[in-house]
Amino acid sequence: MATPIPTSRPSPERVFNTLNAFQQTAALKAGIELDIFTAIADGANTTALLAEKTGAAERGVRILCDYLTIHEFLAKNNGRYSLSQESAIFLNRHSPAYMGTLADFLASAEPKRNFDALTESVRKGGTSVAQGDNTKPNDELWVTFARTMAPLTTVSAGFIADLALAKEGKTCKVLDIAAGHGMFGITIAKLNPNAHITAADWAPVLAVAKENAAAAGVADRVAFRPGSAFEADLGEGYDFVLLTNIFHHFDVPTCEKLMRRVHAALKPGGKAITLEFVPNEDGVTPPTAAAFSLIMLALTDAGDAYTFPQYENMFANAGFVKTTQHSIPDSPQQVLLSEK
Amino acid sequence: MATPIPTSRPSPERVFNTLNAFQQTAALKAGIELDIFTAIADGANTTALLAEKTGAAERGVRILCDYLTIHEFLAKNNGRYSLSQESAIFLNRHSPAYMGTLADFLASAEPKRNFDALTESVRKGGTSVAQGDNTKPNDELWVTFARTMAPLTTVSAGFIADLALAKEGKTCKVLDIAAGHGMFGITIAKLNPNAHITAADWAPVLAVAKENAAAAGVADRVAFRPGSAFEADLGEGYDFVLLTNIFHHFDVPTCEKLMRRVHAALKPGGKAITLEFVPNEDGVTPPTAAAFSLIMLALTDAGDAYTFPQYENMFANAGFVKTTQHSIPDSPQQVLLSEK
Repeated sequence: MATPIPTSRPSPERVFNTLNAFQQTAALKAGIELDIFTAIADGANTTALLAEKTGAAERGVRILCDYLTIHEFLAKNNGRYSLSQESAIFLNRHSPAYMGTLADFLASAEPKRNFDALTESVRKGGTSVAQGDNTKPNDELWVTFARTMAPLTTVSAGFIADLALAKEGKTCKVLDIAAGHGMFGITIAKLNPNAHITAADWAPVLAVAKENAAAAGVADRVAFRPGSAFEADLGEGYDFVLLTNIFHHFDVPTCEKLMRRVHAALKPGGKAITLEFVPNEDGVTPPTAAAFSLIMLALTDAGDAYTFPQYENMFANAGFVKTTQHSIPDSPQQVLLSEK
Repeated sequence: MATPIPTSRPSPERVFNTLNAFQQTAALKAGIELDIFTAIADGANTTALLAEKTGAAERGVRILCDYLTIHEFLAKNNGRYSLSQESAIFLNRHSPAYMGTLADFLASAEPKRNFDALTESVRKGGTSVAQGDNTKPNDELWVTFARTMAPLTTVSAGFIADLALAKEGKTCKVLDIAAGHGMFGITIAKLNPNAHITAADWAPVLAVAKENAAAAGVADRVAFRPGSAFEADLGEGYDFVLLTNIFHHFDVPTCEKLMRRVHAALKPGGKAITLEFVPNEDGVTPPTAAAFSLIMLALTDAGDAYTFPQYENMFANAGFVKTTQHSIPDSPQQVLLSEK
């Protein structure tokens, strides 16, 4: 991990680099905040040009860009910087897949405070800092999530829209639970003119989804149900219920309770569609999905990255007859399709 | 970097994992603080046994150990954890090469505060938080350094002692500038019973070197010169002057000023021995040495990881006739040997 280790003999370098890994977060965040990637895309490819374009010191730009080159976000040839393929797609502000906004959620003060207290959270077995049960509103956090994290959903939202048969264009009712930015439901609505979406979340978060629905031109087919997914009236007769990145916040009984409400809201033959980090049963592969557990340890009382057999069992207990697992290409996440 | 990316197509996973890289620091620090590695070495290889041994929650231990497995500090087979070769050597408290103390300096609140302000430091071209010129005492910081960072020096201290011909056992006078823990001079004193060491540093830091000299049984051959390396009387007639990890804190004129004082303190034919992170002229290889620049941007006014030609030039300007470069096996650092 971190920086490649050039020797096969044991070296303290990995320990040194891992204790310094927080610097990687800070460097990428600084590159995004200074819009270095967009500046390079626009042709400012030397430290002098970049300093002029970003208003930063040439010395600062040189050291930062060299560091971003070491970590393969940039390439450097004869003193000129260029974007890696990934940076061109995901970090150039002019790119439709720009995801620089993620820094405002992932690398903000709140998760860092939680991880500063990680030792205590391991002792306790759950967060020692945050409001961790996630069944009560925490508006500022989730509004920030809704405003920043949408770019990460592009691939998975398209995949889910396919599973919801959006391109067939049949009339259908979709409930999007913990909708956040709303992009999962909105993507279905864009692809299927006969889809009607109900987005459920805390009221201040739904304001963001409402803006996004309007921007996508589907506002007339998106309704809103503010409140707790555990208490609010969710409606009924849905063809599909979307549960994207919600179960990992809770313990097993709470997940089952939510899934029973979903079961009740679906029409006969309806399907629940779950998007999640689903590690293998060994708990350590694949890496990004398995590592997600630690984020839940630091940020929640009892959340986790559950395995497929754990989900299968929870959903069966909630009344679903069958759950299948679907890998999303180019994503660390999985989709689970559960039939009522 | 971070976690391996399983696809060759562009994926947002690297951006996601890098924005989360601070979690790697927190996880390794928690493992060290809970002494997980020592517990596993002592036979507690399941989550139940580890929870009992460390007093932590089983859920917390399971998630942390899985994460440390993903990042190759542990291995996991049939639910039992074992140490990687590196963890056995560097993270088991019973190992003579234990370096868990590094976490108290590298991953402490102060550098993290500096990196939280990295964007501003790039704009400014130097630290925007710390007392950055490093020519004045900053006792708490450097006492912590002296108390925690000694384990990183074992390999380089032995290499330097060889360059200082310690095993030949000739009478020699060695000045150790910015001695810190004092282990570079102490290593020479241990190998050469006719070596007399003078350790220079701020007085509170020298108290740590004094303890280490006593513990190594060489206290009678280690003298102390408290104060600034730029102002204190350093003495004269030295065979060797050690300059370990000091130049990177300063700008070029300050480095030259220090090296002129070193030149004056050496006897004719004496040698200055510099230990440093020395990147190649491209500024981006080898990775750990090149990445060190960013730490200096965040923590100092004008420090840097200088290239060999830059050092050659500085040392020539200070009066040295010749400087040669020596790679230390299994270390990201280099040694420069300069002849008066």
